[in-house]
Amino acid sequence: MQQFGIIGLSVMGKNLALNVRNSGFSVSGFSITKEEVDSFAQYEDDKLKPTYSWTEFVNSLERPRKILIQIAAGKPVDETLHTLLPLLDQGDILIDGGNSNFHDTNRRFHEMEDQGIHFIGMGVSGGEEGALNGPAMMPGGDEQSYQAVAPILKAVAAKNAEGQPCVSFIGPEGSGHYVKMVHNGIEYGIMQEFSEVYDILRKIAGKSNDEMSEIFAKWNQGLVQAYLSEITAEVLKQKDDLTADHIIDHILNVASYKGTGNWMLEDGVSLGAPISVIAEAVLSRFMSKASTREGKEITWQGEVPADLIDNLEQALQLSQAVAYAQGFQQLKLSADAYGWALRYPAIAQTWEAGCIIRSAMLKDIERAYADGKVLVNMFQDPYFKDLMEKNLPALRQVVELATKAGIPTPTLSAALNYLESIFNPSLPANLIQGQRDYFGAHTYLRNDRAGVFHTEWYEEK
Amino acid sequence: MQQFGIIGLSVMGKNLALNVRNSGFSVSGFSITKEEVDSFAQYEDDKLKPTYSWTEFVNSLERPRKILIQIAAGKPVDETLHTLLPLLDQGDILIDGGNSNFHDTNRRFHEMEDQGIHFIGMGVSGGEEGALNGPAMMPGGDEQSYQAVAPILKAVAAKNAEGQPCVSFIGPEGSGHYVKMVHNGIEYGIMQEFSEVYDILRKIAGKSNDEMSEIFAKWNQGLVQAYLSEITAEVLKQKDDLTADHIIDHILNVASYKGTGNWMLEDGVSLGAPISVIAEAVLSRFMSKASTREGKEITWQGEVPADLIDNLEQALQLSQAVAYAQGFQQLKLSADAYGWALRYPAIAQTWEAGCIIRSAMLKDIERAYADGKVLVNMFQDPYFKDLMEKNLPALRQVVELATKAGIPTPTLSAALNYLESIFNPSLPANLIQGQRDYFGAHTYLRNDRAGVFHTEWYEEK
Repeated sequence: MQQFGIIGLSVMGKNLALNVRNSGFSVSGFSITKEEVDSFAQYEDDKLKPTYSWTEFVNSLERPRKILIQIAAGKPVDETLHTLLPLLDQGDILIDGGNSNFHDTNRRFHEMEDQGIHFIGMGVSGGEEGALNGPAMMPGGDEQSYQAVAPILKAVAAKNAEGQPCVSFIGPEGSGHYVKMVHNGIEYGIMQEFSEVYDILRKIAGKSNDEMSEIFAKWNQGLVQAYLSEITAEVLKQKDDLTADHIIDHILNVASYKGTGNWMLEDGVSLGAPISVIAEAVLSRFMSKASTREGKEITWQGEVPADLIDNLEQALQLSQAVAYAQGFQQLKLSADAYGWALRYPAIAQTWEAGCIIRSAMLKDIERAYADGKVLVNMFQDPYFKDLMEKNLPALRQVVELATKAGIPTPTLSAALNYLESIFNPSLPANLIQGQRDYFGAHTYLRNDRAGVFHTEWYEEK
Repeated sequence: MQQFGIIGLSVMGKNLALNVRNSGFSVSGFSITKEEVDSFAQYEDDKLKPTYSWTEFVNSLERPRKILIQIAAGKPVDETLHTLLPLLDQGDILIDGGNSNFHDTNRRFHEMEDQGIHFIGMGVSGGEEGALNGPAMMPGGDEQSYQAVAPILKAVAAKNAEGQPCVSFIGPEGSGHYVKMVHNGIEYGIMQEFSEVYDILRKIAGKSNDEMSEIFAKWNQGLVQAYLSEITAEVLKQKDDLTADHIIDHILNVASYKGTGNWMLEDGVSLGAPISVIAEAVLSRFMSKASTREGKEITWQGEVPADLIDNLEQALQLSQAVAYAQGFQQLKLSADAYGWALRYPAIAQTWEAGCIIRSAMLKDIERAYADGKVLVNMFQDPYFKDLMEKNLPALRQVVELATKAGIPTPTLSAALNYLESIFNPSLPANLIQGQRDYFGAHTYLRNDRAGVFHTEWYEEK
């Protein structure tokens, strides 16, 4: 009998199965697409078993069964649960490893609970390469069933610098998929920040693709040690197969999305989370589709500041920190709203390897939230407050220069405006409250005494 | 028998009833709160009738009945419909004049249609003063029943500069409430823009409240002729009842919201609308609650540019245009997605008087969209393209200066970044697509040939 089963054998499912086998556990694989099973069968050995029917698959697993469903999110997951349910026994454990919406996972968790089946909604990050060699995983559901699958998940997971596996129990219901959604929203934010820095490097500093590649590679050894720095350097230096140029100059500048960043923004709006970097990143993808492109190219005639490259590195480091900060701010609001006791240091640790937003900074974030520390925002932590004070002049300079040059910087601007607001003693929202009371008698609070007030702004007609 | 009935007699319902009576139509009023009916009864005459029960109310109306429900949005509306339904006759017309969510209105429209009742979801803007003297109204539902109530609505409505009533049929289902939601989102955007300009005026230009009041009053005669300019001038000069100061300096700087701006953002995200000014305005209200206020006050030591006030006027005019542009961009996307044939010039005209975002600029917007003109964004229209080119240097200067000074300008930055993007031939989203293909094999399009491409970025391990 096999110790673990995987349903869905496209590249993610197949690579996870190989990873399970390579980690010393036996695994069965099944897919409703026969070609996927055939392709999977080439890896067959005593620890890896292809199966060609639901019953063959289910009967090949030891009890309680531990089954990972690795298929497209949405309706296919419900269909799979529907088909699987009559074939299962009480106490079996199902793991949904797709990018499911946390609302669906909340519902499925309780539906399966009612049937005596343990359901774990698990975010998986790392792409196909991570699936094979070690992804970051964010499982939510009931902790007891997590413990039953933990030995396999920990063996399979990426390991951080200290050798700890990048997986830990997140919390109840859909919290695992929620944390993955926030991971992806942060990813949207940081990717857009990188693209704005790239835009400034090429248009103001006049750097070539190879020069930019070297700059990002250097930053990856410096202040912005991050997977996204590493791959940006790789992407920029890649030559095209079809022309003599670099591929970056022939990739169409329209950003696609599967929507997890959008979900984070939608839920952030319902929670009152000020996640402006994530919002601007989501909207920038929309803008990349909506732009008519009928304007003139920018040619910067002004001076190029001698410290521009250093300032860009500092600005990127700080704005990356803002993307993380906004993510953790939303996690806090979601934990309060949904009654989830999220463990922020464990989440930071989970992201330290294997996933797309892995970076050296996550170790500092893990420290900032250690020992149950509660922060209104991450920059209340002394390390990040220092970072802010040190790098803020650079971020201001970069935004100023881009503004002068006419280069749009939606996420860098949002990161800067966030930092200028989080400790601001005199945001101008008093004017908004005055206007609201004027036209709608919405009342206001005062800064010098308790109570709710309304002004008779004009003579009643 | 009375020609019109109103359910809900708090200040909005009462004022609308008085407006109907003052416009020459007879009206019955009812409320489940007896005190409201008692207070309403003081206006009783041959054209204004208080009623004290559902049946008295319903029986006082000529057929087909025309009933405006002016109560809190949400569950109370469904409860009212439930109570009312057995008392009505086929062909009666119900109008929901509250700030209902358009999803609810879509549902209610079809529920009432199934019962033979005509249902009009109508956005009403103008506050209590507008309700009495002329609001802007945005009715959606079936056009035939709109025609039956149009004489009353047109008489009651605000009139624009040409004397046209600020009401016209919007479209089917919840489209009337949708347009009101977009009105409110634009309102959030423009109010936040005003508050940022106010922040710069006081902190950089060092203007007193009375000086700022005069500046906004002057702009209201100049480039920013708008109700919000008018009331900003009023709010800034208002003295406090409780201290010797101006009231603006004692209003707590935490902005409240009822959520229609949030709804616009949520739906904008689902539609792919790049409504960054509205997003930043919504998130700025969240930020006003989230800021710890533990930082230092800004004291600007730098030079104050001689043309700062003029530049602020131009920047505010242009950023106001961006808020409208983003609103109309979302209207276009919603019309396409929901199958509503929205008439943009009629919507602009509806907003020209009576409502909170009324301004001289709406006449230019009405012209821009005249004759069924379809625009990807409003700045494709020659008038607005000129405005953009003329005012962009001022907006850049203002954002630059605020950046240097450390004053957050989330919506002014967003407006600028929007304008720098809408015609941009080389947004840097190609890097995002490269990164996505690198880590997730998400593929990309090319700018030099058709097809879907994937690069083998690295040696498979």
